[in-house]
Amino acid sequence: MRFSQLISSLEKGNAGLQDHQLGNDPEINNGASLEKATQSQLSFLEKISHLSGQLSTTNAGAVLIPSEDNLKTKAQERGIAWATFTNPRLGFAEALEILNPKTIPNAGVHPSAVIEADVQLEEGVHIGAHVFIDKGSVIKANCVIHPGVVIYEGVVIGEGSELHANSVVHRKSSIGKKCVIHSNAVIGSEGFGFVPTKGGWTKMPQTGVVIIEDLVEIGCSSSIDRPAVGETRIGEGTKIDNLVQIGHGVTIGKGCAMASQVGVAGGAKIGNGVILAGQVGVANRVEVGSGVIASSKCGIHTDIAPGEVISGFPAIPNRLWLRCSATFRRLPEIAKSLKDLNRDASR
Amino acid sequence: MRFSQLISSLEKGNAGLQDHQLGNDPEINNGASLEKATQSQLSFLEKISHLSGQLSTTNAGAVLIPSEDNLKTKAQERGIAWATFTNPRLGFAEALEILNPKTIPNAGVHPSAVIEADVQLEEGVHIGAHVFIDKGSVIKANCVIHPGVVIYEGVVIGEGSELHANSVVHRKSSIGKKCVIHSNAVIGSEGFGFVPTKGGWTKMPQTGVVIIEDLVEIGCSSSIDRPAVGETRIGEGTKIDNLVQIGHGVTIGKGCAMASQVGVAGGAKIGNGVILAGQVGVANRVEVGSGVIASSKCGIHTDIAPGEVISGFPAIPNRLWLRCSATFRRLPEIAKSLKDLNRDASR
Amino acid sequence: MRFSQLISSLEKGNAGLQDHQLGNDPEINNGASLEKATQSQLSFLEKISHLSGQLSTTNAGAVLIPSEDNLKTKAQERGIAWATFTNPRLGFAEALEILNPKTIPNAGVHPSAVIEADVQLEEGVHIGAHVFIDKGSVIKANCVIHPGVVIYEGVVIGEGSELHANSVVHRKSSIGKKCVIHSNAVIGSEGFGFVPTKGGWTKMPQTGVVIIEDLVEIGCSSSIDRPAVGETRIGEGTKIDNLVQIGHGVTIGKGCAMASQVGVAGGAKIGNGVILAGQVGVANRVEVGSGVIASSKCGIHTDIAPGEVISGFPAIPNRLWLRCSATFRRLPEIAKSLKDLNRDASR
Repeated sequence: MRFSQLISSLEKGNAGLQDHQLGNDPEINNGASLEKATQSQLSFLEKISHLSGQLSTTNAGAVLIPSEDNLKTKAQERGIAWATFTNPRLGFAEALEILNPKTIPNAGVHPSAVIEADVQLEEGVHIGAHVFIDKGSVIKANCVIHPGVVIYEGVVIGEGSELHANSVVHRKSSIGKKCVIHSNAVIGSEGFGFVPTKGGWTKMPQTGVVIIEDLVEIGCSSSIDRPAVGETRIGEGTKIDNLVQIGHGVTIGKGCAMASQVGVAGGAKIGNGVILAGQVGVANRVEVGSGVIASSKCGIHTDIAPGEVISGFPAIPNRLWLRCSATFRRLPEIAKSLKDLNRDASR
Repeated sequence: MRFSQLISSLEKGNAGLQDHQLGNDPEINNGASLEKATQSQLSFLEKISHLSGQLSTTNAGAVLIPSEDNLKTKAQERGIAWATFTNPRLGFAEALEILNPKTIPNAGVHPSAVIEADVQLEEGVHIGAHVFIDKGSVIKANCVIHPGVVIYEGVVIGEGSELHANSVVHRKSSIGKKCVIHSNAVIGSEGFGFVPTKGGWTKMPQTGVVIIEDLVEIGCSSSIDRPAVGETRIGEGTKIDNLVQIGHGVTIGKGCAMASQVGVAGGAKIGNGVILAGQVGVANRVEVGSGVIASSKCGIHTDIAPGEVISGFPAIPNRLWLRCSATFRRLPEIAKSLKDLNRDASR
Repeated sequence: MRFSQLISSLEKGNAGLQDHQLGNDPEINNGASLEKATQSQLSFLEKISHLSGQLSTTNAGAVLIPSEDNLKTKAQERGIAWATFTNPRLGFAEALEILNPKTIPNAGVHPSAVIEADVQLEEGVHIGAHVFIDKGSVIKANCVIHPGVVIYEGVVIGEGSELHANSVVHRKSSIGKKCVIHSNAVIGSEGFGFVPTKGGWTKMPQTGVVIIEDLVEIGCSSSIDRPAVGETRIGEGTKIDNLVQIGHGVTIGKGCAMASQVGVAGGAKIGNGVILAGQVGVANRVEVGSGVIASSKCGIHTDIAPGEVISGFPAIPNRLWLRCSATFRRLPEIAKSLKDLNRDASR
């Protein structure tokens, strides 16, 4: 589509379109990075970006930029069509959505799918090949269930949710509206609860449920366990990446983001808007306050107050950790210096 | 069921029922935490628990408690039915089992399942939809194979084992009695063995097998690799959580517990009763003695003597690690103090 | 087969067969470790191996060894047939391949598989039970697609590749020749890209693709994400173990090896021949030079020059890290000693 058409659509978006200059109104068919974009591709730049120099060399046909005079001038000079946004990244996301409209699979149940008794399939639902849905489950309107998905008994999947291939949802789990469960994720599996006895580990029956609120994403091969009693809950709008473990009885607030390979142990409570970077671990029953940011590989063993930025293992304030880590690599010289002082002192 | 009926059943259990007081013999239909329990729910309390204060506020209809006079008195005062146990947590596990009897799927093979030649299905076996079982495999009595499971050639699954949806068992693996393989787990896949050559990584054929003894659980999306030669073995009663990697040729003893995201590299030997907390790593060929406890994120690079409690990376005794970690966060001030001393000394 | 036959075959291999001594030309039916081998089994020994003492006790019928006189003499004395190789480990790999010839499944499409319109299946392709292949995908000659695999729209799978049970390949992914995708791996899933807005996390559409070059292996339950724009690329001959996360837009060079539970965050660039040990993490957009070796649990936050050997978190040179770690465990005594010096100084 022409850049002018794209701009018309973006006017209705949430990215805060401000000013624009159509140039020769290039035909735009997709997005790309500044470095790799061609004449028929759109790119973007954020505020105070280390990539701003690339505006001098990019072959992009059009760019979405923050409202900064030097950027506008540079684009103008190079004959690149441009538009300015309060949030150029969001503008780019909206543009990609427009340029790559999602093809929604047709409603209907593939003949190879197996749907047990008393399953409720609402209108517009797509059930792919080799899907299995057990007794009493409810798939609400416009859900897309990809091939190979297995849904156990008594599950509820909210309106407009998408379950990717070979994911599994265990009995009595409840998934909200517009959720995305990625391939091979497992929702509602038995928590890891055992009682130590003389005869070995005796299983604590896991009779609770998993509740996933609206607009949640669960990444590939991640697992969300159900608890012995009560619930494991993932709050609205929380996004969870691949290979993440959420233990039994965990409560996660709204709008959190958890990167790949994070592990949250049983009974932990995570507030709203918490960001856990890759490979972070949260110990049993720990409480992590709203707005906490934990950097990658951080190990959280004790409660963390809201708003803290933490790092390391055990977790300490990020700024302190940066200084401690810098000193860590000087430990051999510190030990040596101390030895010398002691020798001198004992003379 | 009435609390009195539940007590009658628990008398036959292993939790050491001692004394009890039926109160108004409430109708109990499930378990819950002290905090969340209602009149028709059962809760429990362990010895010297930080939760004991909740006995004053809980709405539970009945509680399982250790034999402590103050707890009995408190329950009595509040009109809560109670029973005392040597192991109240085990009593609670047994109660949950009674209150939530497992529904065992009917024996039979779903018509969509594909069972190849020479497969032996013993009596009472349940084979779910879209299961595939390859040539020569043996599924012993009363196994439950959930939908989407794939079993390669020559596998043996022991009596009463349960394989959850979409798990995969590779060729010649042997799984014992009463095991549980959770969703998307992979048993017996090829070990990660390659020989470096000028032309790149040449595959070392993985001709060995995986042997899983009785009463083992393998968590969701965990993988247990087979070795080049010989076996990978998981000992009786060992419980493995989600997203755990067990490398080729590893031997794990009996009664171990491995939390989520643990990784055990090729050829490691783990004794009996070893506990590895979340995200622990064990290096190639390391030997970890029986009874070792490794706290979360611990990195085990060298052999560990039986009974050690270890932490950190590289792993050191837990008590030492606690002191070292506490000092770590004081490193900047230590460096500063040392600098001052040196300055003073050189005056 | 007789050891003499095996030797004839190995002559054509790449392991550099030098000398050999057939002894009583034993019948050899498989390989085993020196410790466990029996008369009908073959074993091997590498140069300067800590296992060389086992040559005095092994029951192996034949051994593959480096050309060292003491080893030849020892084997001779004990009546063990032997052969010397430049690379005995590679010789053993080739021998295992000969002794355990791969059974290639018959070409054909299982009747339960669902193949959508415009799918191209080339000659010799095997499609297992309950496989699903969506519109426009191309499965090139001699591929083996095991049961339960799901292939989305517009995928290309190169000649001779093998996809193990229940793995999933997302839309427009391209997999090269002779690749192996292990069970439950997910290729080409949506990258974890969201734009923070007042209303929460807005999805950045992931319109890019995953390209996997020839001779790559991807381990069980690993996930390779596609990016917002452009590509995620895994270079020729790179081997990736189980439970590994490769984020959106990552570029990995040729001939790399990544052990289990490694995580590489979005946009990172990994050179050729890089080795990442278990549980290593690489941060967003970091560049790791060719030939870098990172030891287990290493956290890589900044660019690493080619050829570096690194450890720890944050990553520092391995040798330095070993010394720092050794000092770390002495931190309490260092703090004590410093305190004493300060006390003495202030007297």
